Amino acid sequence: MKKIVFTIFSVALAAVALAEDGHRLWMRYDAVKTAQVEAPTGSKTIDIAKEELENYFQGDRVMLRIDPTLPDDEGFTLDGSDELLVITAHHDIGLLYGAYEALRLQATDMPMIKETQRPKFKLRLLNHWDNLDGTIERGYAGESIFEWFHLDEQLIRDYARANASIGINGSVLNNVNASPKMLTKEYLREVKKIADILRPYGIRVYLSINFATPMALGQTKTADPKDASVRAWWKKKAKEIYRLIPDFGGFLVKANSEGQPGPGDYNRSHADGANMLADALEPFNGIVMWRCFVYGANHKGEDRVKQAVSEFQPLDGKFHKNVILQTKNGPLDFQPREPYSPVFDQIRETPNMVELQITQEYLGQSQHLVYLAPMWKEFFEYIEPDWLAGIAGVANIGKDANWCGHHFSQANWYAFGRLAWNPSLSSEKIAREWLEQTFNIDENFVFLMSTVMEESREACVSYMMPLGLHHIFKFDHHYGPEPDGFKAEYPLEWCPVYYHKADKDGVGFDRSSTGTNAVSQYREPYSSQYDKLETCPENLLLWFHHLPWDYKMKDGSTLWESLQYHYNQGVIMTETYQNLWHNKMRAYVDDQRWREVDERLKTQVENAKEWRDVCLNYFRQFAEK
Amino acid sequence: MKKIVFTIFSVALAAVALAEDGHRLWMRYDAVKTAQVEAPTGSKTIDIAKEELENYFQGDRVMLRIDPTLPDDEGFTLDGSDELLVITAHHDIGLLYGAYEALRLQATDMPMIKETQRPKFKLRLLNHWDNLDGTIERGYAGESIFEWFHLDEQLIRDYARANASIGINGSVLNNVNASPKMLTKEYLREVKKIADILRPYGIRVYLSINFATPMALGQTKTADPKDASVRAWWKKKAKEIYRLIPDFGGFLVKANSEGQPGPGDYNRSHADGANMLADALEPFNGIVMWRCFVYGANHKGEDRVKQAVSEFQPLDGKFHKNVILQTKNGPLDFQPREPYSPVFDQIRETPNMVELQITQEYLGQSQHLVYLAPMWKEFFEYIEPDWLAGIAGVANIGKDANWCGHHFSQANWYAFGRLAWNPSLSSEKIAREWLEQTFNIDENFVFLMSTVMEESREACVSYMMPLGLHHIFKFDHHYGPEPDGFKAEYPLEWCPVYYHKADKDGVGFDRSSTGTNAVSQYREPYSSQYDKLETCPENLLLWFHHLPWDYKMKDGSTLWESLQYHYNQGVIMTETYQNLWHNKMRAYVDDQRWREVDERLKTQVENAKEWRDVCLNYFRQFAEK
Repeated sequence: MKKIVFTIFSVALAAVALAEDGHRLWMRYDAVKTAQVEAPTGSKTIDIAKEELENYFQGDRVMLRIDPTLPDDEGFTLDGSDELLVITAHHDIGLLYGAYEALRLQATDMPMIKETQRPKFKLRLLNHWDNLDGTIERGYAGESIFEWFHLDEQLIRDYARANASIGINGSVLNNVNASPKMLTKEYLREVKKIADILRPYGIRVYLSINFATPMALGQTKTADPKDASVRAWWKKKAKEIYRLIPDFGGFLVKANSEGQPGPGDYNRSHADGANMLADALEPFNGIVMWRCFVYGANHKGEDRVKQAVSEFQPLDGKFHKNVILQTKNGPLDFQPREPYSPVFDQIRETPNMVELQITQEYLGQSQHLVYLAPMWKEFFEYIEPDWLAGIAGVANIGKDANWCGHHFSQANWYAFGRLAWNPSLSSEKIAREWLEQTFNIDENFVFLMSTVMEESREACVSYMMPLGLHHIFKFDHHYGPEPDGFKAEYPLEWCPVYYHKADKDGVGFDRSSTGTNAVSQYREPYSSQYDKLETCPENLLLWFHHLPWDYKMKDGSTLWESLQYHYNQGVIMTETYQNLWHNKMRAYVDDQRWREVDERLKTQVENAKEWRDVCLNYFRQFAEK
Repeated sequence: MKKIVFTIFSVALAAVALAEDGHRLWMRYDAVKTAQVEAPTGSKTIDIAKEELENYFQGDRVMLRIDPTLPDDEGFTLDGSDELLVITAHHDIGLLYGAYEALRLQATDMPMIKETQRPKFKLRLLNHWDNLDGTIERGYAGESIFEWFHLDEQLIRDYARANASIGINGSVLNNVNASPKMLTKEYLREVKKIADILRPYGIRVYLSINFATPMALGQTKTADPKDASVRAWWKKKAKEIYRLIPDFGGFLVKANSEGQPGPGDYNRSHADGANMLADALEPFNGIVMWRCFVYGANHKGEDRVKQAVSEFQPLDGKFHKNVILQTKNGPLDFQPREPYSPVFDQIRETPNMVELQITQEYLGQSQHLVYLAPMWKEFFEYIEPDWLAGIAGVANIGKDANWCGHHFSQANWYAFGRLAWNPSLSSEKIAREWLEQTFNIDENFVFLMSTVMEESREACVSYMMPLGLHHIFKFDHHYGPEPDGFKAEYPLEWCPVYYHKADKDGVGFDRSSTGTNAVSQYREPYSSQYDKLETCPENLLLWFHHLPWDYKMKDGSTLWESLQYHYNQGVIMTETYQNLWHNKMRAYVDDQRWREVDERLKTQVENAKEWRDVCLNYFRQFAEK
């Protein structure tokens, strides 16, 4: 009898072991426990590094050493073999980063030759658009992992560990459309708990704040940044926060944008608002990340993609030194393809951060396999990392077992961290190491699926909005196509017809010097390049130009033919991915993850066909007039 | 009034000039008439070379020279520039070949650096399966260009010129399923007319003969090759032929195969039959090409792919020296993919010719864009050209304006000639030069369409019969799929079910050492390689093995998954080609040819889907039992 019970128990255990829900992300190390790790004591961060290596490093001996003569940053030096691995760093966190690098090299079967690494960006932040009620704006992987007053500490620890493994060193815990309640004592105590869990992993917490918080909480009569009571409130609040969380990172602010309050409500400038907050945080070395995603306010009616520069350029130089302007990579809103935002050209005196969107709001959400690293690398072709003070990524993390909804969306979280650490890594290299750690190191699998990943964003652009088309999304949810989208009650800048401007004479948005002249916001040579038809890249053509349907492309095809070509090609590419995964990848992936990806690829093909058919049928009525 | 008439006339002329029906093939030279050509007189062949260069060579001066000190073959030496081009050859025909090489270099924008060329194969023949009533067996481009008693001499001249331009030096004018009437005086007089037209272009005529001709014409009582009256008849007939056509090439014979008469009808061997004919032709240096495509006769019941070796191997060494055995590239019948025919391994004493099929009997006929050069190059990976006495291609030529039905099928005629001249040319190089001469020299066009051409045969294999499947064709017409094909009244070897042998236990034809042992007919290392599952190329797997549906492929997928993968991939590839041509190639191609290819690509996509769906649905009933 005893034996039977034991057998049943083993079977149950085996079933659990086989249930590959993706929760382990790219950190699927086997606990080998072979290494003797010698390390300084007294640091929780070093303790974690030690434990990770003791559990998972497949070698004999490891030495972790603090060396204050090394540069004063988060970097490390690693030098190793099976017999002896030595990691040296100036700070504790460098040792932890080095430990994860060693485990990454091991999991991807790379040699541990001597190398020194340091992060390119000092600020490597996730932005969570998580609401206090557990919902997530543009979240597609379940509810928020930050369960206020019911924190799942192990989940937060798993989260911290995953982030530390890729070098992320800050988290903004709540939505930029922020609730004033976030800064109440009750919530701050919860924030402290999270901060305490994240701290040993080298991650600081930050909060998004509602600019009108003191007034909204009934503690001031106004939110005017020049008002003494308001300024005092913020100073006091900062003190309160830092008493709880001495390494609190600072505030992220969305002000006077899409209905959010801000200094403009009192005829004050963004600089006035940001500086007030900066002054409150300054004694504690806190920072203000002030978002440039502003439209429909002071420059209402202007081409939406121009408004950020119009708003902020005159203020450049007027911000206090602990203010950073945070700008989306493109001037509109995380479209599948945008040109870079000219804010990065026009803001010279104030530090800039780029805000990337890891969550696939406009790229198939958690249904489409779209690897975003190639898009981010495209941004870095225009904007030098050295020009930026930091990098933020809008997280795609939720309480779904696999964190991100789509197993392949984990790759975007991973790639964001890797690029934040080292933006010169190729997107292909990142895809390969992610696949190897997450699924299978087999070269056939890695070659084929990294190729799919590398192409996938271009496929998405093709079936959604090729040749510079943008914002043809259905209202509000931003998932499917709605080329005829127009609602009189909505701002015009939310309507697809405003962006594609298709009629019998042509299609596209004239932002050239004969149009809205948005091109003038770009530095040379891009300003001229985008302005002139002969030099404007064809993949941005309809972003900058309104052209007749029979416009001749460089290859001699007409614009209308080219649109049809791309829409079809996008569908064909997704069919290829689905066929490959469905019929060739099963052997490399556990059943559950294989099936979950397979189902989504089927949906992606159906969606791609819908995009193609709806858009081409809509445009056809004009193009084949 | 006069002016108006003239204008109308001009318009009509222009319309004619724009009607690009494809009749000009790859010889679309502009008549520039700039070159002074110095050449020996008195040879029609040299006159043609001179005229071609005078009309089309874009240079100042050309010298054509006969040099008897050069090797005694059809080769030439060419050395040129715009100012002076010199072509030297031992024979007249070498000068003509050199002239066409110069025009090819010019049309493909290549430099005329000094080069010497000679053909790899001495016999470079087209086999026309043209019947005397004008129909063509496996012809998909209209009726026969050989209109008996109503010869279109200009058409024959155009045909000769096109063939000479790619080095073809012989034509078998009539179907191997030959009519006895072919050798009657009336027809031979017509053959003489054709021979007279072809001769200056270096092309000899050959005829397919019906082995029972003397008996069928009522001139002997038997066709027994040992019968004195029969032997005398053939000797006399040979004399008659050579009196009319002194350079007549010889006979092509299909005997005791698929209902054709032959020496077996009199218990004589193939050697007896071939030698009788050889003896008749020998005084005139004529040859006999005796086809090895024999099954269902002496070795009825044996695995069909083995029968040719079983039949001919014992006779090796018994053929007179002007007999050549002509064998299809694969052991079955021109399937999209076959292994090479082991006849080439087993026949050592007798000269061999390979018979390729230019007409796409089993590869989509004149509806599918399938470029065959990659298939033929695959054959040459196994069979050294040096082992062969010649090469024959079953022509795809008919009276359609564009000669071949599908404009891209012209490329197969062209590629056959080019490979017959030089089998070491890459299929890609041939595709590129054909595209440049036939359509457009633009690099974007040539790159994209040569890529399509290069892949197209693999696409066809994928959507028709991947992984070594074969002969799943509909009965008789061999166009669409019929996996459940079985007709009790037909020979079993014509039935698809005989070849795929799909049932709940698996699929494929076991020709390994535990099956029909067809592998034993191959030389090492191929015999062992094909026999063993671990080494058998997967693209021939089901040709040589019967395997369970869940058999693990090298990449870990199951056989059934792999079949589905390939069928889908074949469809996806054709969709890609159609999308590319439809939306991107219009600018490079005249309207008529663009439209005609476009229509066929649409059909090809539909057909590919039909192949996939019919085959997968059929196999699914067993595979997903």
